[in-house]
Formats: sequence, C-alpha cells, structure tokens
Amino acid sequence: MGNQNAKSKQVRSDRGQPARGRKSFWTWGWESDEPTQAQRRETAKHLSQLYGQEVTAPEIPDIESFELRAPRISVPDTLSDVVTTDKSERVIHTYGGHFLELNKAIRGEFEEPPDAVAYPGSEQELEAVLDWCDGKGYAAVPYGGGTTVVNGVSIPGTVDGAVTIDMERFNQVLEIDDVSRAARVQAGIFGPDLESDLRPGGFTLRHFPQSFPWSTLGGWIVTRSGGHYATNHTHIDDFVESIRMITPQGWWESRRLPGSGAGPSPDRMVIGSEGTLGILTEAWMRIQKRPVFRATAGVVFPTWEAAYTATRHIVQAKLWPANLRLLDPAEAGRAAGLDGKQALLIIGFESAELPQGELIKLAVGIARDSGGLISDDEILISDGSGETTGRDGAVGNWRSSFIGVNAGLTNGLGLIGDTFESAVTWDKWPEFDAEIRDKVGKVLKEVIGDAHSLSCRFTHVYTDGPAPYYTFSGMGKKGGQEEQWQAIKNAASEVLISAGGTITHHHAVGRMHAEGWSKQRPDLFETALRATKKSLDPNSILNPGVLFQPD
Amino acid sequence: MGNQNAKSKQVRSDRGQPARGRKSFWTWGWESDEPTQAQRRETAKHLSQLYGQEVTAPEIPDIESFELRAPRISVPDTLSDVVTTDKSERVIHTYGGHFLELNKAIRGEFEEPPDAVAYPGSEQELEAVLDWCDGKGYAAVPYGGGTTVVNGVSIPGTVDGAVTIDMERFNQVLEIDDVSRAARVQAGIFGPDLESDLRPGGFTLRHFPQSFPWSTLGGWIVTRSGGHYATNHTHIDDFVESIRMITPQGWWESRRLPGSGAGPSPDRMVIGSEGTLGILTEAWMRIQKRPVFRATAGVVFPTWEAAYTATRHIVQAKLWPANLRLLDPAEAGRAAGLDGKQALLIIGFESAELPQGELIKLAVGIARDSGGLISDDEILISDGSGETTGRDGAVGNWRSSFIGVNAGLTNGLGLIGDTFESAVTWDKWPEFDAEIRDKVGKVLKEVIGDAHSLSCRFTHVYTDGPAPYYTFSGMGKKGGQEEQWQAIKNAASEVLISAGGTITHHHAVGRMHAEGWSKQRPDLFETALRATKKSLDPNSILNPGVLFQPD
Repeated sequence: MGNQNAKSKQVRSDRGQPARGRKSFWTWGWESDEPTQAQRRETAKHLSQLYGQEVTAPEIPDIESFELRAPRISVPDTLSDVVTTDKSERVIHTYGGHFLELNKAIRGEFEEPPDAVAYPGSEQELEAVLDWCDGKGYAAVPYGGGTTVVNGVSIPGTVDGAVTIDMERFNQVLEIDDVSRAARVQAGIFGPDLESDLRPGGFTLRHFPQSFPWSTLGGWIVTRSGGHYATNHTHIDDFVESIRMITPQGWWESRRLPGSGAGPSPDRMVIGSEGTLGILTEAWMRIQKRPVFRATAGVVFPTWEAAYTATRHIVQAKLWPANLRLLDPAEAGRAAGLDGKQALLIIGFESAELPQGELIKLAVGIARDSGGLISDDEILISDGSGETTGRDGAVGNWRSSFIGVNAGLTNGLGLIGDTFESAVTWDKWPEFDAEIRDKVGKVLKEVIGDAHSLSCRFTHVYTDGPAPYYTFSGMGKKGGQEEQWQAIKNAASEVLISAGGTITHHHAVGRMHAEGWSKQRPDLFETALRATKKSLDPNSILNPGVLFQPD
Repeated sequence: MGNQNAKSKQVRSDRGQPARGRKSFWTWGWESDEPTQAQRRETAKHLSQLYGQEVTAPEIPDIESFELRAPRISVPDTLSDVVTTDKSERVIHTYGGHFLELNKAIRGEFEEPPDAVAYPGSEQELEAVLDWCDGKGYAAVPYGGGTTVVNGVSIPGTVDGAVTIDMERFNQVLEIDDVSRAARVQAGIFGPDLESDLRPGGFTLRHFPQSFPWSTLGGWIVTRSGGHYATNHTHIDDFVESIRMITPQGWWESRRLPGSGAGPSPDRMVIGSEGTLGILTEAWMRIQKRPVFRATAGVVFPTWEAAYTATRHIVQAKLWPANLRLLDPAEAGRAAGLDGKQALLIIGFESAELPQGELIKLAVGIARDSGGLISDDEILISDGSGETTGRDGAVGNWRSSFIGVNAGLTNGLGLIGDTFESAVTWDKWPEFDAEIRDKVGKVLKEVIGDAHSLSCRFTHVYTDGPAPYYTFSGMGKKGGQEEQWQAIKNAASEVLISAGGTITHHHAVGRMHAEGWSKQRPDLFETALRATKKSLDPNSILNPGVLFQPD
C-alpha cells in the first residue's frame, strides 16, 4: 500500500513485537487490567446487599491449572517461530468478551480451544499461516482485541482443527498524509496506540467504541464499529479510505479515493464481513484535527417521551452534534443521579476549527421547545483552549460510569448483565420500545424475579430513527445462568426483528446473532454473500459459523 | 414493501401511465425538449464564427425513415400488452445520452437496437418480462431516463436477442413517513415528479444531479449518482434506507433501518451495480425539510492554486457547505464572466431550520485567509423566507450556464465536447491536475488543433480530496469524430488511473469505463462480484457488458 501516497510522512514507530504483557483470559484487556480479588470480594458484598442473597467471588484459577484438549494439529517447522501451541495462549484465545464466555473461563471450561495460535509479524508470515490453514483445511479465526460480545472469535465445534490468528504484531501507524488528512495504519493496532501515534501531528481518528482500549482497527472495520459519536460521521465505515486484505485466493487492495461512484464499493463488501472473507493487514483511514472547541449541555426532561421527541427534532435539524446521547429515566437515575422519572439528554458539540457556542444554543433551544430543562449557565462552552467540557454534574457522572467501566469486577459472581442494541425508524418507535420493555421485562421477571433492571439509552441518532441500546441485569439462579440468559436473549431478539429493528446496530452478528440476522436480510443477499465467500475462500476456512453456517 | 412502515401516509398520485409524450431519440428528455431547427442553425452559425470553419446543422430525420434490423425475437401473446417491437420505440431506446451516441442517432445509425421494449406497469408484469428473458436467454437491459453517458443502456453485439425494460410506469411516490422523514418511491420516477410529490409535505430528497429533469431514482441508485451538493450527504448512497429489487432468482428486499452494523450492507451491494444484479422497483429514501435559510458567496481568487488550497481548508474545517464548487480560471471566465486568470469558488449554505449567516462568514473567512476576494455586501444571506440567493452576479451567471444546459443544441454539429470526472486525494493533487492538462491537452492539440478548450471545476469536495470535473471541446474533423474522441478519452483515462484517481466519480462505469475500472478495483473484487452476479443472474442476462464482460 505504500505506493498509494505521493508525499506523506513515514511515521513507523517501534512499539516492540508484541507490545504488551499477556492478555487476561477472563476479562477484557491485559492481566494488568484485571481487578484484584479484594475488589471482586467487595463487589460481591455490594451485590449481596443489593439483591439480598449471598454472592461470593470465586478465586480466579491459575491458567496453568486448566486441563485442555491436546492440539489436534502439529505446527510445521517453517512456522514454528510464528505459530504456538502453548497452553496459556490457547486458553487466552478460546473466548471473546461476552460475560458468559468469561464466566466459563473462570470456571475453567474450555471445550473448544484453538489448536494453535499464530502471531504473524509480517504479511509474508500471515500469508504462510493462511496457506498452511487452507492447505490443511483448518479453520482460521482472525483475532483483534478479543472484545467481541457476539462469539465472533469462537472455535466452532464443527471443525477438526483451528488456528486463531492474533494480529497484534500489526500494530503500527505507517504513514500520515497530513495534506489529505489520512493515515496508513496496520489492522492490529489498539485504540490508544493509534491515537498516541496520531497525536503529535494534532490528528485523531476520532473513533471511540466502548471497547476502545482493548480493541483494534481491523476489528472495528470488519464489525462495522459504531464509535462514540452520535450523529453524522461516526461509524468506522465513514473513515475507511482503502483496505488491504489477504484472502486464501490472494491479496485484495482497494485504491485510496476520497469518493467514487465506480461500481459497487469494494470496501463496503469488506466492512462488516467479520473475518469471513479475508484478514485485514492495513487500511488508509481518514483522520481529522483534534477538537479544541467544545460545548456540552445536559438537558433534563420530565418524561421519556418528551426527551426522545426532542432528540428527534434536534437530529432532524441537521446540526450534527458530536454527542446526542439520551438516557431513559432508569439510566439517568443510575448513571447521572437524577430522580428516576426524568430523562437526560447529553448534547455535545466539537470542532477543531470553530466555536461551538451558537450551535449548542440552537440545539438547546430545540430541546427547550420540547420541554427540556436547563439553565443558561449549565451550557458549558470551551473557547478553543482545548479544555474539556462536561466533566462535572450530571454529564460528568454519566461520563465516569460509561468510560470507567471495568468488566472484570462482576465476572463470575453470578450476575446476569448484558446489553442489546438496535436501530429502528421513528415511525415504529415508541411501539418498539414499549414492546421491548413489555416482552423482555416479562422474561426478566420470570427468570430473575423482581430484582432486575432494564433500561435504555440512545447511542446514535439518525434523521430517520434512533439506535436504542438496552441494558439488563439481575442475579441469576445458580447453575442456570446460560439458560436464563438465553431466555432473555430470545425474547429480545424476537422483538428486535418483529418490531422492525435490526438484530444488532454495532455489536456485529458473530455466531450469536446469525439466526436473527437471517430474518432481517434479503435471502438473496445471503445467497450472494455465500457466493462471494466461495470465490475468495473456497475451502471455507475463514471464521466459519460467523454470519452464516458454511455450505 | 408497504408493510415496512407503521403509520405513514399513502400519497399515491395518478400521473397516468406512461406520463409523458414520446422520448426524443436524439437528445436528453422528451420531444418537447428538443431545440428547433432554427435554434440549431443559430448555434451552427455561432460555432462557425468561433472556430473559423463552416459548421452546418443537419436536418433531424423523421424517426419513421430509419431502416432497422428486424426484431430477432417474437413477443408471446401473454406479454403483448407490455412488450412492443414498435420501430420508434426500438429507435428511441437504442442509445443513452452520450454525444457520440446521439450523433449516430441523428445520422440514422442504429446497428444494435433492442429487439423489443417492455413497459411493465406492475411488479407482476416486470417479473413476467424478466422470466421470459431469462427463459429465452435474452439480454435484459434496464432503462431509467436514458441519460447515461457511459453506454449504460446499449445493447451488446454479443447477444442474440435483447429486451430493453423501460421503468417509466413505476413513477409514484407511494408513501411518505413524515415522522421518520422517509418516502417509499418507485424506481422509475423522474426527478421533477418526485420533488413535486414531496413538496406538499414540505419535503425534498435534495438530490439534483445535472440530469435531474430526465433521469430516475432507480438510475441514480444503481449508478451511485453524485447529486448537486458538494459536501457531506449528497451521494444517493446516503439517502437510501432500503431497496426492493427483482432478480432472475427472485425478489430482494432490504429492511428499512436508519443504521445497522449487521454484516456487510445489502444495499451497498446494489448501489452501483448498474443493472447487472437486478432491477429496482422501489426504495425507501431519506427525505428532508425544504431549505428556507440560505447563504451564498462567490469568492474570487487570483490563482487556481490559491483557490483549491482555500477549498481544501474549508472542507477540512467540516462546516459542510451545501455548495463548494470551484471553477478554474477557464470555467470562471466562460461561465461566470471573470477575466480568465481568476478562479471562482461558489460557497453555499442551506438549512430548513437554522440561519446560515454565521457559517458562511466562517467559510468566507477561511477563503480570505487563502487570498480569496469578496466584499461583505456580496455575501448573500436569506433570512428564512425561503427566498433563493445567488441568482445574480458571477454566481448567477454560473448557475444559468449549469442548470440551463440544452444538450440538443450542438448535437450533430460536429463539435467534440465531453466531460470526464474523477476523485483523488489531496496529496496527489495538483500533480494529477497538471498531468491531465499536459497529457490530455497534447492530444487535444493533435486531434483538434489550437482551437480547443480544457477546463476544470470541482463538483464535490471531501476532507481527503476533491472530485475534479473536466470539460473539453473543439470542432472535430469531419468523419473522424469517434476516433478523435477516443484518442482524447484514452489519454484522459490513462492519466486518471496512473495519477491515482478513479475512472469515474459519478458518471458510472457502464460499458465505456469497464476497462479503466478493471485497473483500479481489486482483481478479487471483480472475482467476488462475478460470483455474486452468477448467484443472482445465472444466465447472465442482466445488462451484459456493463462493469465487466460476462464469463
């Protein structure tokens, strides 16, 4: 891809290969991110009080203590520097980031570990690994940060051998083209490393999914990651300028172009393919100047209905706020300290170039017209110094609860806590919301009892509809967590589809949503996608079982 | 598709089937759009003076006078109400809108007419026509407005029978969902009819390609039409909410969704497929309120370089102007009356909700920082009354020359006049521009002589690069127009690819750009697309030769 730019800077920084210590086998991120046993006991105590039942924090077993199926494959000498069958590596790569997977890890259940883990350090090594898998018919499962919550990196039980291909050594920003505001970036780079390499030039990708510290550019692209921003350009789809990918049939590289109407977009075929068509090594990404002008306002609404109506009016005014995050009364109470009846709309504007004060006043004006409450001095405007806004008050409270999430604290404690997200056109909302709350609420009551929560926020908002994000939790009954979770999940999935939404807005399809997805996409689209896959991956080795079952 | 919305209005209006008189066989639009012979003689006289050579306007022959190959197929009785072999219909549908095609039409050369023309009036009739073609192996060529300038509706010489499927009876806006701001629209509707059906509700699709009066929604979608606006959401791609399409394997219908990260986008596979995968019957389109706040400024720059640098700075500031159209000195002189050395940047802002005065002042400020000249009282701001701006002065002059284009005036007079457009990242611009002017200029001089013009404007601008649009013209040598044009086209296409651009930004691939396109897309993307086509159109009847040659 290097020959695609005329005069950009070489910025390759040596971050060491691989960069960090060992990944945690039971929570997102690295071992250094793991909470201590004392913290987990504290959380268990808190949950005991909250739910009125005894909750204990099991000890995290030592990774060396696990019994693991022996590798079913042997690594050829030519690949011995790149591919390992080390037990701890196979343990660490067995699961993604869904809480049920992590609970299994804590219980020491690893029914389907990969037989080997590859850490290619160059395109040649990646090609050799893929050739080996293709020749032998081993499943090849691409692995970015392992934060998938949809079983996107699981080894299917249907294969006789599987190699997880961890891309973490592809961790460089290779070039920055500051005239075009684009960067050539390796696919395995983690969010913080990418941002830290862009920062010296004053740039940012400005794409911050909640998994940001532990997930990779390649993962974001193949799962159509949503990013943290609410309107206009926030999806990773919008930032991709070109893609370089290896397939079992060879290399696929699209041309760097700011826009093109030449045939269907090759990149749009790759974006969302979830590792089923190829493995990304690099992409040219559109970057931007770091914002220094900011404005934030937290508008309180007396009712949920008033709040989502205001949100619709603001997005349809096309002001393109960076943030337009709506918390329902339950979330606004829990995360921002409101009274449990009021909803909170967090409006944020950002720009590298332009004062944002006028824009936020216009947005707040629309919010007030729909019954929103905020005093003028609660509208926070930063003057271009780059200072952040919105770190205090209700908005600040919410921000801490969102960004500071430590998934490890409750893992293995018996809590059933999960999220599901969708998008639906405004005409079907609020019936969609009512039905979710009714149907999913009923099942939650059945399987968890009264002590459960179900709440909603909008993570993204479009002129034609919101992207609602639901969170539920409660203590599961001992030993039946999987079944209880499945009953809740089934109810949710059924409503998402029957009420006109998408089975997933930005968590991806993976293996978890394959069935739901089959009910929303044109049947012939699956036909076409299977044909596409067959043409690129004739032996069906790439991430089998994701999106759809192999032929 | 009707069941996809919960509470939208039924707005089906009866516009008669078919709505208008006969299409012109030698210019865009209908016979009523044709210039008179007197007007054409006047144009010929003008060209004679301009180029110092005798130019005459041939009489337009009567359509009945043409000799046409007899239809190679016979229409079954069951389809006789829908399919015709009428000579004039076959003549009218032989060509798209490229000037060489229209010249051939005026000369009465119709080597490859369709054998029949279908006018399905319902999905059932369309299905029956397609079944018939598929069963017999006839090429099925979808036809919208026939304004293609890339041979997108030509009948290939490789087939034994061909049916052009004219979609003009699919001409209704079926529903408007004013809560979600979306409309269900039939694919064959022409631009003005669509806008006139949306207007009573205060809505607009706000998509105005230069072919707008004579082209259709379905055509825009399958060719990834660019629209008239310069930044942010302007491509038809951004407005598509869902698509309904018939393929030889059956119906394809995507779900109405404001956003989704569930697998690759089915719609993005259809958008840009140029009739090779199926024929669209309907789409849900995102609509918006009609703008009433407007602001316009025409900024003059002493040099081309200062002008495009300013344009880059404005787009990278992410103000998202509706218009950011840059005319090089040649175009600014010809179309806007400037001195031939100065460039003109037309900046426009629009909103249905918000005053645009502050935004345009910010944009003008950036322009002035790069040497742009405009006095404060030349910044035109409309206050919300809905009054237009920019109808006077240099901007007004340019507007008249853009919108008032009457392609018919010069058809058949011997003028070689054409355009080509691309998009390229800023780092490769201005070398890209210099090379176009050098290489294409040389060929223009060789084949046309000194009396030629070559000029550039930006039609769309992205943060990572411009979409330059080149226009050339001059009097061709008698009898050799095709060869002369081809020499110019070859030079242009070669530079577009070698200098890092796209072979087309919004004119589509068609048959004209198939070879150029093959040099810019990943080879494996064509492999995948062929597999996709095979899965949907196993007998390869749909628009063969577009995008790529059939297997």
